Amino acid sequence: MTSTSESRAIQLYFDFLCPYAWRGVELADVLRREHGLHFELRHFSLVQGNHPENPDRKAPQWWLTDQAAEGGSEAQQGSLAAFLAAQAAMRQGEEAGWRFALALLRARHQQKAELHRPDVLQQVAEAAGLELPTFQQDLQDDAGLRAALRQDLQDSAALGVFGTPTFQLPEGGAAYFRYANLVTDPAQALALWQLYTSVLSDDARIETIKRPR
Amino acid sequence: MTSTSESRAIQLYFDFLCPYAWRGVELADVLRREHGLHFELRHFSLVQGNHPENPDRKAPQWWLTDQAAEGGSEAQQGSLAAFLAAQAAMRQGEEAGWRFALALLRARHQQKAELHRPDVLQQVAEAAGLELPTFQQDLQDDAGLRAALRQDLQDSAALGVFGTPTFQLPEGGAAYFRYANLVTDPAQALALWQLYTSVLSDDARIETIKRPR
Repeated sequence: MTSTSESRAIQLYFDFLCPYAWRGVELADVLRREHGLHFELRHFSLVQGNHPENPDRKAPQWWLTDQAAEGGSEAQQGSLAAFLAAQAAMRQGEEAGWRFALALLRARHQQKAELHRPDVLQQVAEAAGLELPTFQQDLQDDAGLRAALRQDLQDSAALGVFGTPTFQLPEGGAAYFRYANLVTDPAQALALWQLYTSVLSDDARIETIKRPR
Repeated sequence: MTSTSESRAIQLYFDFLCPYAWRGVELADVLRREHGLHFELRHFSLVQGNHPENPDRKAPQWWLTDQAAEGGSEAQQGSLAAFLAAQAAMRQGEEAGWRFALALLRARHQQKAELHRPDVLQQVAEAAGLELPTFQQDLQDDAGLRAALRQDLQDSAALGVFGTPTFQLPEGGAAYFRYANLVTDPAQALALWQLYTSVLSDDARIETIKRPR
């Protein structure tokens, strides 16, 4: 459920599997803590987006939320488990949601933690300072967590998200934003964000800037 | 052959087939005329880049320059004919090369001219103020024109170009740059260029900014 004030937040779509999403969530965390910007953490699934049964990314036929917890590849199992755990963490409040998301992204991309292992998610929840009994209890509400995740997956599909991180501004512009070097310095973070939003707001309507690889 | 001074020019890879390349060449023309920037017009072939025999864009197996003038699709015929005509036009000097490239891009993207028709290329050469007997004579040097085109295709493949326009800065950075709205106002063109180069030079090493579609 999105309140009126939250609907003016920048929507940040990310997948725990993606190293560029990790950079994006770190950037957003600096911007919200140091510069007062407001972001809402939303989930987009790369496994779903790249699934062969989903040639039209705006009209998925295969949904991660319809899959069994134990089914599919490790990436599929791990991303579903991570998303549901993150939904459970958010029930402990916005700050708890950020702490869990950042801790899990760091565990994944700095320590190569395996997302499909329940003990990893427990350790991250503990490190993020969640109330563990509440977290365990919330995880049991599988249907409720999947419904919340489904809303994110529906909204990202409607927007045409294809990769993460994708930021959607309150004014409506949105773009995938990939960069190589982690940015945590507050001044550098603000300058990078201003550059990104300048690209989105330019009158030329810039659609793509992409380096050859 | 690239002289020392030309090697400090911004390399602009484009294909006459591409509407975004048209916008890019118009932008570069404003920047060179109004702001003294130096661009070198280079050719990249989308037909070659997207060819199924070229899964590795840095190591093409299928080359447009190896194809007969009459072979393949209209897009293939038209792009080869346009590239060779542009090479011939450049033999009449840098300004003639720009006039021909702009006139042909405008004919293609504003009047839907068909590039595979020799009469279209003749009309454009005339409209661009080329010396027509010289143009006709230069067109007869098919091997020489193909060799010059091959150099462009080799350089763009080495860079990993995948779409046009792609600008390569003298400092080495390069990116595909796609935007929707034609920019010809000198001040707007300079601001857009500064935004693009700011993205390429940011310390975060931005790799992609791309709107969902």
